[in-house]
Amino acid sequence: MRIALDAMGGDHGLAPNIAGALRAVAAAADLTVVLVGDEAQIGPALAAAGTYPTDRIEVVHSAGVIGMTEKPVEAFRKKPDNTIAQSWKLVATKKVDGLVSAGNTGAVVAGGLFTKRFLKGIRKPGIAAVMPNAKGRTVILDVGANVFPKPSHLLQYGVMGSVYAKHMLGVERPTIGLMNVGEEEVKGHDLVRQTYELFRNSPLNDRFIGNVEGRDIHRGACDVIVTDGFVGNVLLKQAEGLFEFVMGLIAKDVVGALTTERETAAKAVKQLVGRFHHSAAGGAPLLGVDGVCVICHGSSDDRAIANALATATQNVRVRLNDRIVEELATLPDLGEE
Amino acid sequence: MRIALDAMGGDHGLAPNIAGALRAVAAAADLTVVLVGDEAQIGPALAAAGTYPTDRIEVVHSAGVIGMTEKPVEAFRKKPDNTIAQSWKLVATKKVDGLVSAGNTGAVVAGGLFTKRFLKGIRKPGIAAVMPNAKGRTVILDVGANVFPKPSHLLQYGVMGSVYAKHMLGVERPTIGLMNVGEEEVKGHDLVRQTYELFRNSPLNDRFIGNVEGRDIHRGACDVIVTDGFVGNVLLKQAEGLFEFVMGLIAKDVVGALTTERETAAKAVKQLVGRFHHSAAGGAPLLGVDGVCVICHGSSDDRAIANALATATQNVRVRLNDRIVEELATLPDLGEE
Repeated sequence: MRIALDAMGGDHGLAPNIAGALRAVAAAADLTVVLVGDEAQIGPALAAAGTYPTDRIEVVHSAGVIGMTEKPVEAFRKKPDNTIAQSWKLVATKKVDGLVSAGNTGAVVAGGLFTKRFLKGIRKPGIAAVMPNAKGRTVILDVGANVFPKPSHLLQYGVMGSVYAKHMLGVERPTIGLMNVGEEEVKGHDLVRQTYELFRNSPLNDRFIGNVEGRDIHRGACDVIVTDGFVGNVLLKQAEGLFEFVMGLIAKDVVGALTTERETAAKAVKQLVGRFHHSAAGGAPLLGVDGVCVICHGSSDDRAIANALATATQNVRVRLNDRIVEELATLPDLGEE
Repeated sequence: MRIALDAMGGDHGLAPNIAGALRAVAAAADLTVVLVGDEAQIGPALAAAGTYPTDRIEVVHSAGVIGMTEKPVEAFRKKPDNTIAQSWKLVATKKVDGLVSAGNTGAVVAGGLFTKRFLKGIRKPGIAAVMPNAKGRTVILDVGANVFPKPSHLLQYGVMGSVYAKHMLGVERPTIGLMNVGEEEVKGHDLVRQTYELFRNSPLNDRFIGNVEGRDIHRGACDVIVTDGFVGNVLLKQAEGLFEFVMGLIAKDVVGALTTERETAAKAVKQLVGRFHHSAAGGAPLLGVDGVCVICHGSSDDRAIANALATATQNVRVRLNDRIVEELATLPDLGEE
């Protein structure tokens, strides 16, 4: 099993990527990580890292780095040898089974689209995020690859999300909800109304629970939620900000109210924060492209990188993409749209 | 000061509305509440309520009640004398200064649109919600009246939100952000790109901080956030569900970890929940219609109703609508769109 890692990606450059790669290979004996980046920087960093299984860390040189706020398409033109393009090339030529990057998300997605190697039948790839809820976890997609989707894209996200929930999260019969502004089928704009109809008239109908609302995500109303990439992205980031805000209040108003047991409470809060921090989530997979791709938060630390490498590894192990193609093949033709 | 209250609105029928009205009049000596609903039910409920300032509680009979999940337009046709239509009629004929309803939100908005009495220059009314953040409060609009707005609508929401932040929340120079999937101006779909340009080229430019992301809401990046009613509604409801989820975790994992100070911690958690519960927010104003309108959560209790009546009262006191019209008049003509 070989996974490429964008060694220069993310807000903190090389350090968390190297450390994350070493953690990941230590945890999985069948994993080789291919560090894609500037050899002149990676070499000394590895030399300073102490002992590690040298046969399972490789380096592929790539000089260009796309900045976190650069425009993806322009950046790809100006720096054709960037680490993201190079990582995708390794995927496309089957030199690796997948890639992980904490770099510019738009560029990672663009790199995947540029390969033009989508899974058979897929119209638009989408990014899935796994969010905690009161009963377990929710797979929500798309969270940013496709801000203006068609109904057929959302239907395919339903398929990909179900396959993910089943084979990655162990949910035997995943249920699917459509994010909307109310539960009634007449709610929302054209996209959601048409998507509702498409689900109802598809073989997915028996696992489609209909419209869900924002409050249903963390209540665990269903296992998979489909939405456009604009809404999904805003939701994912709001969850991050709100969690941070509430935990700040808890530290001040709850932990701060205590004396003798303050330390116990602070420790419990710290554990919760660790459990729900994005670094624990294992990254967000870009689904629908031929090849495994896991996208990390720009602020990823070594734990986040190691967890994302573990997600990518697991995606390969369960043959996630084959299963998506198999499931898609059971759907009738979606027509022009 | 006279405010109509949809006495039958909400998930719990008459009881919280009556109790909320009595709390509100007890708290504001210049307030008269006009209960709009079934006299045969309101009479006995008031008789059972004990002593209250009888000269400041009035009843206007209305037989029809629109159910919480009925389709608004159909419901208005079938029950022309519903409590929501009746309340809007009182507003339109200046019998009251405003209205409060915990009923079907779509019907309350539709009732406002049916009056065809928008504030001078307003193209589309929007619902504003006030959300807590790490520095104070954020006014976010629209949260559900306008799921497919035009850029000019969002610009006007910026004006209305600023006026609200200034005169209702006491923010001297409110800043405005545009909800998007990234901070760069090239992000997002056509609506947000065009809206970005419109703000940049308008007299609001000096208070427009550009694009904001989901995580910025509760970090308090700006005082006002404009977005379409679909995104705003989903965000508002996600915040409710996520807060509930996190507080559940806190009760179990943090409070549950304590022994001697468990009660102190539980009390602090309860206070936080009370402070951030929707019933403390004072409802969500529908802005842009000639007449004050405050919409409450369907599950409102008497505290929520009393707080919404207080919001409506304050909107009237600060002459919110006059100030919106004044501010709008300073903007150049928006053209056809």
